[in-house]
Amino acid sequence: MIAPDMATMLAFCFTDANLPGDILQQALQEAARDSFNAITVDSDTSTSDTLMLFATAAAGNRTPQALDDEIFTEFRSALNSLMLDLALQVVRDGEGATKLIKVTVSGAEDDTAAKIIAGSIANSPLVKTAIAGEDANWGRIVMAVGKSGQRADRDSLEISMGGIRITANGEVLEGYDEGRVAQHLKQQEITIDVDVGIASGKFTMWTCDLTHGYITINADYRS
Amino acid sequence: MIAPDMATMLAFCFTDANLPGDILQQALQEAARDSFNAITVDSDTSTSDTLMLFATAAAGNRTPQALDDEIFTEFRSALNSLMLDLALQVVRDGEGATKLIKVTVSGAEDDTAAKIIAGSIANSPLVKTAIAGEDANWGRIVMAVGKSGQRADRDSLEISMGGIRITANGEVLEGYDEGRVAQHLKQQEITIDVDVGIASGKFTMWTCDLTHGYITINADYRS
Repeated sequence: MIAPDMATMLAFCFTDANLPGDILQQALQEAARDSFNAITVDSDTSTSDTLMLFATAAAGNRTPQALDDEIFTEFRSALNSLMLDLALQVVRDGEGATKLIKVTVSGAEDDTAAKIIAGSIANSPLVKTAIAGEDANWGRIVMAVGKSGQRADRDSLEISMGGIRITANGEVLEGYDEGRVAQHLKQQEITIDVDVGIASGKFTMWTCDLTHGYITINADYRS
Repeated sequence: MIAPDMATMLAFCFTDANLPGDILQQALQEAARDSFNAITVDSDTSTSDTLMLFATAAAGNRTPQALDDEIFTEFRSALNSLMLDLALQVVRDGEGATKLIKVTVSGAEDDTAAKIIAGSIANSPLVKTAIAGEDANWGRIVMAVGKSGQRADRDSLEISMGGIRITANGEVLEGYDEGRVAQHLKQQEITIDVDVGIASGKFTMWTCDLTHGYITINADYRS
Protein backbone atom coordinates (compact mmCIF):
# COMPACT_ATOMS: atom_id res chain seq x y z
CA MET A 1 0.00 0.00 0.00
CA ILE A 2 2.70 2.41 -1.08
CA ALA A 3 2.55 4.60 -4.16
CA PRO A 4 3.66 8.10 -5.08
CA ASP A 5 2.49 10.61 -2.51
CA MET A 6 3.12 8.02 0.19
CA ALA A 7 0.81 5.62 2.00
CA THR A 8 0.31 4.18 5.49
CA MET A 9 3.50 5.83 6.57
CA LEU A 10 4.51 8.30 9.23
CA ALA A 11 7.97 9.88 8.91
CA PHE A 12 9.38 12.41 11.36
CA CYS A 13 12.75 14.07 10.76
CA PHE A 14 14.66 16.42 13.02
CA THR A 15 17.62 18.75 12.60
CA ASP A 16 19.40 21.12 14.96
CA ALA A 17 19.87 23.63 12.14
CA ASN A 18 18.43 27.11 12.44
CA LEU A 19 16.05 27.23 9.48
CA PRO A 20 12.89 29.33 9.04
CA GLY A 21 9.72 27.32 8.52
CA ASP A 22 9.01 28.46 4.97
CA ILE A 23 12.47 27.47 3.75
CA LEU A 24 12.27 24.19 5.63
CA GLN A 25 8.96 23.47 3.90
CA GLN A 26 10.44 24.19 0.46
CA ALA A 27 13.43 21.98 1.20
CA LEU A 28 11.16 19.16 2.35
CA GLN A 29 9.00 19.38 -0.75
CA GLU A 30 12.10 19.32 -2.93
CA ALA A 31 13.39 16.24 -1.10
CA ALA A 32 10.01 14.46 -1.08
CA ARG A 33 9.52 14.93 -4.82
CA ASP A 34 12.33 12.52 -5.68
CA SER A 35 12.06 10.21 -2.68
CA PHE A 36 8.78 9.53 -0.88
CA ASN A 37 6.76 10.83 -3.81
CA ALA A 38 8.76 8.71 -6.26
CA ILE A 39 8.21 5.25 -4.80
CA THR A 40 5.48 2.67 -5.36
CA VAL A 41 4.94 -0.88 -4.18
CA ASP A 42 1.58 -1.76 -5.72
CA SER A 43 -0.02 1.52 -6.91
CA ASP A 44 -2.33 1.51 -3.90
CA THR A 45 -2.28 4.39 -1.44
CA SER A 46 -3.66 5.07 2.00
CA THR A 47 -5.09 8.00 3.89
CA SER A 48 -2.67 8.36 6.75
CA ASP A 49 0.63 9.44 5.23
CA THR A 50 2.68 12.01 7.01
CA LEU A 51 6.15 13.40 6.48
CA MET A 52 7.31 16.07 8.91
CA LEU A 53 10.57 17.93 9.29
CA PHE A 54 11.41 19.88 12.44
CA ALA A 55 14.30 22.32 13.02
CA THR A 56 15.24 23.11 16.60
CA ALA A 57 17.72 25.90 15.71
CA ALA A 58 20.03 24.53 18.43
CA ALA A 59 22.98 24.69 16.01
CA GLY A 60 22.86 28.48 16.20
CA ASN A 61 23.80 29.06 12.55
CA ARG A 62 23.04 32.23 10.61
CA THR A 63 19.45 32.16 9.39
CA PRO A 64 19.37 31.43 5.63
CA GLN A 65 17.27 33.85 3.57
CA ALA A 66 16.11 31.51 0.81
CA LEU A 67 16.23 27.90 -0.36
CA ASP A 68 19.26 28.64 -2.53
CA ASP A 69 21.25 30.39 0.25
CA GLU A 70 24.74 28.84 0.06
CA ILE A 71 24.79 28.11 3.80
CA PHE A 72 21.96 25.74 3.00
CA THR A 73 23.53 23.85 0.06
CA GLU A 74 25.12 21.03 1.98
CA PHE A 75 22.06 20.65 4.20
CA ARG A 76 19.77 20.29 1.19
CA SER A 77 22.00 17.66 -0.32
CA ALA A 78 22.11 15.72 2.95
CA LEU A 79 18.35 16.04 3.36
CA ASN A 80 17.74 14.73 -0.16
CA SER A 81 20.02 11.76 0.51
CA LEU A 82 18.36 10.99 3.83
CA MET A 83 14.87 11.11 2.33
CA LEU A 84 15.84 8.85 -0.56
CA ASP A 85 17.48 6.41 1.83
CA LEU A 86 14.33 6.27 4.00
CA ALA A 87 12.03 5.99 0.98
CA LEU A 88 14.03 3.13 -0.53
CA GLN A 89 13.89 1.27 2.77
CA VAL A 90 10.10 1.41 2.41
CA VAL A 91 10.23 -0.10 -1.09
CA ARG A 92 12.73 -2.80 -0.11
CA ASP A 93 10.29 -3.70 2.66
CA GLY A 94 7.35 -3.92 0.20
CA GLU A 95 5.11 -6.94 0.62
CA GLY A 96 6.96 -9.91 -0.83
CA ALA A 97 9.61 -7.74 -2.49
CA THR A 98 12.85 -9.49 -3.43
CA LYS A 99 14.24 -6.81 -5.77
CA LEU A 100 14.49 -3.01 -5.80
CA ILE A 101 13.78 -1.60 -9.26
CA LYS A 102 14.91 1.86 -10.39
CA VAL A 103 12.92 3.09 -13.38
CA THR A 104 14.29 6.17 -15.12
CA VAL A 105 12.36 7.72 -17.97
CA SER A 106 13.97 10.41 -20.10
CA GLY A 107 13.13 12.12 -23.36
CA ALA A 108 9.53 12.76 -22.29
CA GLU A 109 7.48 15.83 -23.13
CA ASP A 110 8.19 17.23 -19.64
CA ASP A 111 9.03 15.95 -16.15
CA THR A 112 5.35 15.37 -15.36
CA ALA A 113 4.94 13.19 -18.46
CA ALA A 114 8.14 11.35 -17.51
CA LYS A 115 6.72 10.66 -14.04
CA ILE A 116 3.47 9.30 -15.51
CA ILE A 117 5.37 6.97 -17.87
CA ALA A 118 7.75 5.87 -15.08
CA GLY A 119 4.71 5.19 -12.88
CA SER A 120 3.05 3.18 -15.63
CA ILE A 121 6.15 0.97 -15.87
CA ALA A 122 6.71 0.80 -12.09
CA ASN A 123 3.08 -0.16 -11.42
CA SER A 124 2.66 -2.64 -14.26
CA PRO A 125 1.96 -6.10 -12.78
CA LEU A 126 3.41 -7.66 -15.93
CA VAL A 127 6.69 -5.71 -15.69
CA LYS A 128 6.95 -6.48 -11.96
CA THR A 129 6.28 -10.20 -12.38
CA ALA A 130 8.78 -10.37 -15.26
CA ILE A 131 11.45 -8.88 -12.97
CA ALA A 132 10.44 -11.34 -10.24
CA GLY A 133 10.98 -14.09 -12.81
CA GLU A 134 14.33 -12.53 -13.83
CA ASP A 135 13.18 -12.32 -17.45
CA ALA A 136 14.48 -9.54 -19.71
CA ASN A 137 10.96 -8.92 -21.01
CA TRP A 138 11.41 -5.54 -22.69
CA GLY A 139 8.12 -6.02 -24.59
CA ARG A 140 6.22 -5.50 -21.33
CA ILE A 141 8.12 -2.24 -20.82
CA VAL A 142 7.05 -1.06 -24.28
CA MET A 143 3.48 -2.01 -23.36
CA ALA A 144 3.65 0.07 -20.16
CA VAL A 145 5.03 3.07 -22.06
CA GLY A 146 2.15 2.74 -24.50
CA LYS A 147 -0.62 2.48 -21.93
CA SER A 148 0.63 5.56 -20.06
CA GLY A 149 -1.16 7.73 -22.58
CA GLN A 150 1.85 10.06 -22.81
CA ARG A 151 3.66 10.98 -26.02
CA ALA A 152 6.44 8.58 -27.07
CA ASP A 153 8.19 8.06 -30.39
CA ARG A 154 8.09 4.39 -31.30
CA ASP A 155 10.85 4.81 -33.86
CA SER A 156 13.37 6.26 -31.44
CA LEU A 157 12.49 4.34 -28.28
CA GLU A 158 15.56 3.26 -26.29
CA ILE A 159 15.39 0.67 -23.52
CA SER A 160 18.23 -0.48 -21.26
CA MET A 161 18.30 -2.84 -18.31
CA GLY A 162 21.29 -2.88 -15.99
CA GLY A 163 22.87 -0.28 -18.23
CA ILE A 164 22.85 -2.71 -21.17
CA ARG A 165 21.15 -1.21 -24.22
CA ILE A 166 18.42 -3.50 -25.57
CA THR A 167 16.65 -1.35 -28.16
CA ALA A 168 17.56 1.80 -30.05
CA ASN A 169 15.66 3.63 -32.77
CA GLY A 170 12.69 1.45 -31.97
CA GLU A 171 14.46 -1.80 -32.82
CA VAL A 172 16.32 -4.49 -30.91
CA LEU A 173 20.05 -3.79 -31.21
CA GLU A 174 22.06 -5.99 -33.51
CA GLY A 175 24.05 -8.43 -31.42
CA TYR A 176 21.90 -7.85 -28.34
CA ASP A 177 22.92 -10.46 -25.79
CA GLU A 178 19.98 -11.39 -23.57
CA GLY A 179 22.32 -13.41 -21.38
CA ARG A 180 24.04 -10.25 -20.09
CA VAL A 181 20.72 -8.70 -19.09
CA ALA A 182 19.67 -12.00 -17.52
CA GLN A 183 22.82 -11.82 -15.37
CA HIS A 184 21.84 -8.31 -14.22
CA LEU A 185 18.32 -9.51 -13.38
CA LYS A 186 19.72 -12.03 -10.92
CA GLN A 187 20.87 -9.10 -8.77
CA GLN A 188 18.73 -7.49 -6.06
CA GLU A 189 18.93 -3.99 -7.51
CA ILE A 190 17.56 -3.68 -11.03
CA THR A 191 17.72 -0.63 -13.28
CA ILE A 192 15.42 0.10 -16.20
CA ASP A 193 16.15 3.11 -18.40
CA VAL A 194 13.76 4.23 -21.08
CA ASP A 195 14.16 7.17 -23.46
CA VAL A 196 10.91 7.93 -25.27
CA GLY A 197 12.49 10.32 -27.76
CA ILE A 198 10.17 13.33 -27.55
CA ALA A 199 11.84 16.08 -25.50
CA SER A 200 13.91 16.36 -22.31
CA GLY A 201 11.47 15.51 -19.52
CA LYS A 202 12.98 13.10 -16.97
CA PHE A 203 11.92 11.31 -13.81
CA THR A 204 13.14 8.38 -11.72
CA MET A 205 10.71 6.17 -9.85
CA TRP A 206 11.46 3.25 -7.54
CA THR A 207 9.46 0.08 -7.12
CA CYS A 208 9.84 -3.61 -6.28
CA ASP A 209 9.02 -6.89 -7.97
CA LEU A 210 5.66 -8.67 -7.64
CA THR A 211 6.01 -12.13 -6.14
CA HIS A 212 4.04 -14.93 -4.51
CA GLY A 213 4.95 -13.23 -1.23
CA TYR A 214 2.73 -10.27 -2.13
CA ILE A 215 -0.25 -12.56 -2.65
CA THR A 216 0.46 -14.47 0.53
CA ILE A 217 0.58 -11.27 2.59
CA ASN A 218 -2.39 -9.55 0.98
CA ALA A 219 -4.76 -12.44 0.20
CA ASP A 220 -4.09 -15.13 2.76
CA TYR A 221 -4.02 -13.00 5.93
CA ARG A 222 -7.43 -14.23 7.15
CA SER A 223 -6.69 -17.92 6.79
CA MET B 1 -2.87 -8.27 -20.13
CA ILE B 2 -6.47 -7.16 -20.38
CA ALA B 3 -7.75 -3.73 -19.41
CA PRO B 4 -10.37 -1.31 -20.70
CA ASP B 5 -9.99 -0.79 -24.43
CA MET B 6 -9.00 -4.43 -24.78
CA ALA B 7 -5.65 -6.16 -25.05
CA THR B 8 -4.05 -9.08 -26.91
CA MET B 9 -7.42 -10.01 -28.23
CA LEU B 10 -8.97 -10.50 -31.66
CA ALA B 11 -12.77 -10.73 -31.83
CA PHE B 12 -14.74 -11.21 -35.05
CA CYS B 13 -18.54 -11.19 -35.05
CA PHE B 14 -20.90 -11.88 -37.94
CA THR B 15 -24.60 -11.34 -38.58
CA ASP B 16 -26.85 -12.02 -41.57
CA ALA B 17 -28.80 -8.84 -40.88
CA ASN B 18 -28.95 -6.12 -43.53
CA LEU B 19 -27.34 -3.19 -41.71
CA PRO B 20 -25.49 -0.22 -43.21
CA GLY B 21 -21.87 0.14 -42.09
CA ASP B 22 -22.29 3.44 -40.21
CA ILE B 23 -25.13 2.09 -38.09
CA LEU B 24 -23.26 -1.16 -37.52
CA GLN B 25 -20.27 0.86 -36.29
CA GLN B 26 -22.44 2.85 -33.87
CA ALA B 27 -24.03 -0.34 -32.56
CA LEU B 28 -20.64 -1.94 -32.07
CA GLN B 29 -19.28 1.07 -30.18
CA GLU B 30 -22.35 1.07 -27.96
CA ALA B 31 -21.89 -2.63 -27.25
CA ALA B 32 -18.12 -2.37 -26.71
CA ARG B 33 -18.47 0.49 -24.21
CA ASP B 34 -20.08 -1.76 -21.61
CA SER B 35 -18.39 -5.04 -22.50
CA PHE B 36 -14.89 -5.21 -24.01
CA ASN B 37 -14.11 -1.67 -22.89
CA ALA B 38 -15.36 -2.38 -19.37
CA ILE B 39 -13.17 -5.32 -18.42
CA THR B 40 -9.73 -5.53 -16.82
CA VAL B 41 -7.57 -8.37 -15.60
CA ASP B 42 -4.45 -6.56 -14.41
CA SER B 43 -4.59 -2.98 -15.78
CA ASP B 44 -2.04 -3.89 -18.46
CA THR B 45 -2.91 -3.55 -22.12
CA SER B 46 -1.44 -4.65 -25.42
CA THR B 47 -1.14 -3.33 -28.93
CA SER B 48 -2.99 -5.90 -30.94
CA ASP B 49 -6.64 -5.61 -29.93
CA THR B 50 -9.27 -5.91 -32.57
CA LEU B 51 -13.05 -6.15 -32.46
CA MET B 52 -14.84 -6.41 -35.79
CA LEU B 53 -18.49 -6.83 -36.71
CA PHE B 54 -19.59 -7.87 -40.20
CA ALA B 55 -23.11 -7.87 -41.67
CA THR B 56 -23.76 -9.99 -44.76
CA ALA B 57 -27.30 -8.66 -45.40
CA ALA B 58 -28.35 -12.23 -46.23
CA ALA B 59 -31.43 -11.87 -44.00
CA GLY B 60 -32.88 -9.42 -46.51
CA ASN B 61 -34.55 -7.18 -43.92
CA ARG B 62 -35.55 -3.57 -44.53
CA THR B 63 -32.52 -1.32 -44.15
CA PRO B 64 -32.70 0.58 -40.83
CA GLN B 65 -32.18 4.34 -41.11
CA ALA B 66 -30.58 5.01 -37.75
CA LEU B 67 -29.30 3.33 -34.60
CA ASP B 68 -32.67 3.90 -32.88
CA ASP B 69 -34.77 2.45 -35.76
CA GLU B 70 -37.23 0.08 -34.07
CA ILE B 71 -36.37 -2.73 -36.50
CA PHE B 72 -32.96 -2.60 -34.87
CA THR B 73 -34.02 -2.67 -31.18
CA GLU B 74 -33.94 -6.40 -30.65
CA PHE B 75 -30.69 -6.75 -32.61
CA ARG B 76 -28.97 -4.13 -30.46
CA SER B 77 -30.07 -5.84 -27.30
CA ALA B 78 -28.83 -9.21 -28.59
CA LEU B 79 -25.55 -7.66 -29.72
CA ASN B 80 -24.97 -6.06 -26.32
CA SER B 81 -25.65 -9.39 -24.60
CA LEU B 82 -23.32 -11.27 -26.94
CA MET B 83 -20.50 -8.76 -26.44
CA LEU B 84 -20.84 -8.85 -22.67
CA ASP B 85 -20.88 -12.65 -22.70
CA LEU B 86 -17.68 -12.76 -24.79
CA ALA B 87 -15.98 -10.07 -22.68
CA LEU B 88 -16.80 -11.85 -19.42
CA GLN B 89 -15.34 -15.08 -20.81
CA VAL B 90 -12.08 -13.16 -21.24
CA VAL B 91 -12.11 -12.03 -17.59
CA ARG B 92 -13.06 -15.46 -16.26
CA ASP B 93 -10.05 -16.75 -18.20
CA GLY B 94 -7.74 -14.10 -16.65
CA GLU B 95 -4.37 -15.41 -15.45
CA GLY B 96 -4.99 -17.25 -12.18
CA ALA B 97 -8.56 -15.92 -11.87
CA THR B 98 -10.86 -17.82 -9.52
CA LYS B 99 -13.60 -15.21 -9.18
CA LEU B 100 -15.43 -12.80 -11.49
CA ILE B 101 -15.95 -9.40 -9.84
CA LYS B 102 -18.60 -6.90 -10.95
CA VAL B 103 -17.81 -3.38 -9.75
CA THR B 104 -20.63 -0.85 -10.12
CA VAL B 105 -19.99 2.76 -9.22
CA SER B 106 -22.91 5.16 -9.01
CA GLY B 107 -23.41 8.68 -7.70
CA ALA B 108 -20.31 9.96 -9.51
CA GLU B 109 -19.91 13.38 -11.10
CA ASP B 110 -20.59 11.82 -14.54
CA ASP B 111 -20.24 8.45 -16.29
CA THR B 112 -16.58 9.13 -17.10
CA ALA B 113 -15.78 9.80 -13.44
CA ALA B 114 -17.71 6.64 -12.51
CA LYS B 115 -15.60 4.62 -14.96
CA ILE B 116 -12.35 6.02 -13.52
CA ILE B 117 -13.44 5.15 -9.96
CA ALA B 118 -14.65 1.69 -11.03
CA GLY B 119 -11.32 1.15 -12.77
CA SER B 120 -9.41 2.24 -9.68
CA ILE B 121 -11.27 -0.37 -7.62
CA ALA B 122 -11.11 -3.07 -10.31
CA ASN B 123 -7.35 -2.60 -10.81
CA SER B 124 -6.37 -2.27 -7.14
CA PRO B 125 -4.05 -5.16 -6.24
CA LEU B 126 -5.19 -4.85 -2.62
CA VAL B 127 -8.89 -5.10 -3.50
CA LYS B 128 -8.22 -8.04 -5.84
CA THR B 129 -6.11 -9.94 -3.30
CA ALA B 130 -8.72 -9.33 -0.59
CA ILE B 131 -11.36 -10.90 -2.83
CA ALA B 132 -8.99 -13.80 -3.55
CA GLY B 133 -8.72 -14.21 0.22
CA GLU B 134 -12.52 -13.97 0.55
CA ASP B 135 -12.16 -11.08 3.00
CA ALA B 136 -14.86 -8.39 3.22
CA ASN B 137 -12.20 -5.70 3.25
CA TRP B 138 -14.31 -2.61 2.49
CA GLY B 139 -11.46 -0.36 3.73
CA ARG B 140 -9.47 -1.24 0.61
CA ILE B 141 -12.46 -0.22 -1.52
CA VAL B 142 -12.56 3.17 0.23
CA MET B 143 -8.82 3.48 -0.46
CA ALA B 144 -9.34 2.77 -4.16
CA VAL B 145 -12.14 5.35 -4.36
CA GLY B 146 -9.82 7.87 -2.74
CA LYS B 147 -6.83 7.27 -4.98
CA SER B 148 -8.95 7.60 -8.14
CA GLY B 149 -8.68 11.37 -7.84
CA GLN B 150 -12.39 11.75 -8.65
CA ARG B 151 -14.91 13.59 -6.48
CA ALA B 152 -16.53 11.50 -3.74
CA ASP B 153 -18.40 12.49 -0.59
CA ARG B 154 -16.89 10.69 2.37
CA ASP B 155 -19.94 11.40 4.50
CA SER B 156 -22.43 9.78 2.14
CA LEU B 157 -20.32 6.92 0.79
CA GLU B 158 -22.29 3.68 0.45
CA ILE B 159 -20.61 0.32 -0.09
CA SER B 160 -22.30 -3.05 -0.64
CA MET B 161 -20.89 -6.47 -1.43
CA GLY B 162 -23.18 -9.22 -2.69
CA GLY B 163 -26.05 -6.76 -2.35
CA ILE B 164 -25.45 -6.52 1.39
CA ARG B 165 -25.05 -2.93 2.54
CA ILE B 166 -21.88 -2.42 4.57
CA THR B 167 -21.61 1.35 4.92
CA ALA B 168 -24.07 4.22 4.56
CA ASN B 169 -23.57 7.92 5.18
CA GLY B 170 -19.87 7.25 5.47
CA GLU B 171 -20.20 4.88 8.42
CA VAL B 172 -20.42 1.14 8.92
CA LEU B 173 -24.11 0.22 9.31
CA GLU B 174 -25.34 -0.63 12.78
CA GLY B 175 -25.73 -4.38 13.04
CA TYR B 176 -23.58 -5.02 9.95
CA ASP B 177 -22.97 -8.78 9.81
CA GLU B 178 -19.61 -9.51 8.20
CA GLY B 179 -20.49 -13.21 8.16
CA ARG B 180 -23.16 -12.67 5.48
CA VAL B 181 -20.69 -10.87 3.20
CA ALA B 182 -18.10 -13.58 3.90
CA GLN B 183 -20.65 -16.13 2.66
CA HIS B 184 -21.08 -14.13 -0.57
CA LEU B 185 -17.30 -13.96 -1.04
CA LYS B 186 -17.11 -17.75 -1.11
CA GLN B 187 -19.02 -17.64 -4.42
CA GLN B 188 -17.36 -17.38 -7.82
CA GLU B 189 -19.27 -14.23 -8.86
CA ILE B 190 -18.73 -11.26 -6.58
CA THR B 191 -20.51 -7.91 -6.74
CA ILE B 192 -19.22 -4.64 -5.33
CA ASP B 193 -21.51 -1.60 -5.41
CA VAL B 194 -20.25 1.83 -4.44
CA ASP B 195 -22.25 5.07 -4.38
CA VAL B 196 -19.95 8.07 -4.00
CA GLY B 197 -22.77 10.53 -3.32
CA ILE B 198 -21.94 13.35 -5.72
CA ALA B 199 -24.29 13.18 -8.74
CA SER B 200 -25.74 10.50 -11.02
CA GLY B 201 -22.74 9.22 -13.04
CA LYS B 202 -22.68 5.42 -13.23
CA PHE B 203 -20.48 2.70 -14.72
CA THR B 204 -19.99 -1.03 -14.28
CA MET B 205 -16.59 -2.64 -14.73
CA TRP B 206 -15.66 -6.32 -14.57
CA THR B 207 -12.46 -7.82 -13.22
CA CYS B 208 -11.11 -10.93 -11.51
CA ASP B 209 -9.25 -11.67 -8.29
CA LEU B 210 -5.44 -11.63 -7.97
CA THR B 211 -4.05 -14.99 -6.90
CA HIS B 212 -0.87 -17.02 -6.71
CA GLY B 213 -1.88 -18.32 -10.14
CA TYR B 214 -1.29 -14.87 -11.66
CA ILE B 215 2.26 -14.80 -10.29
CA THR B 216 2.94 -18.35 -11.42
CA ILE B 217 1.81 -17.58 -14.98
CA ASN B 218 3.49 -14.17 -15.29
CA ALA B 219 6.69 -14.59 -13.26
CA ASP B 220 7.61 -18.24 -13.42
CA TYR B 221 7.19 -18.84 -17.17
CA ARG B 222 10.94 -18.99 -17.85
CA SER B 223 11.76 -21.49 -15.13
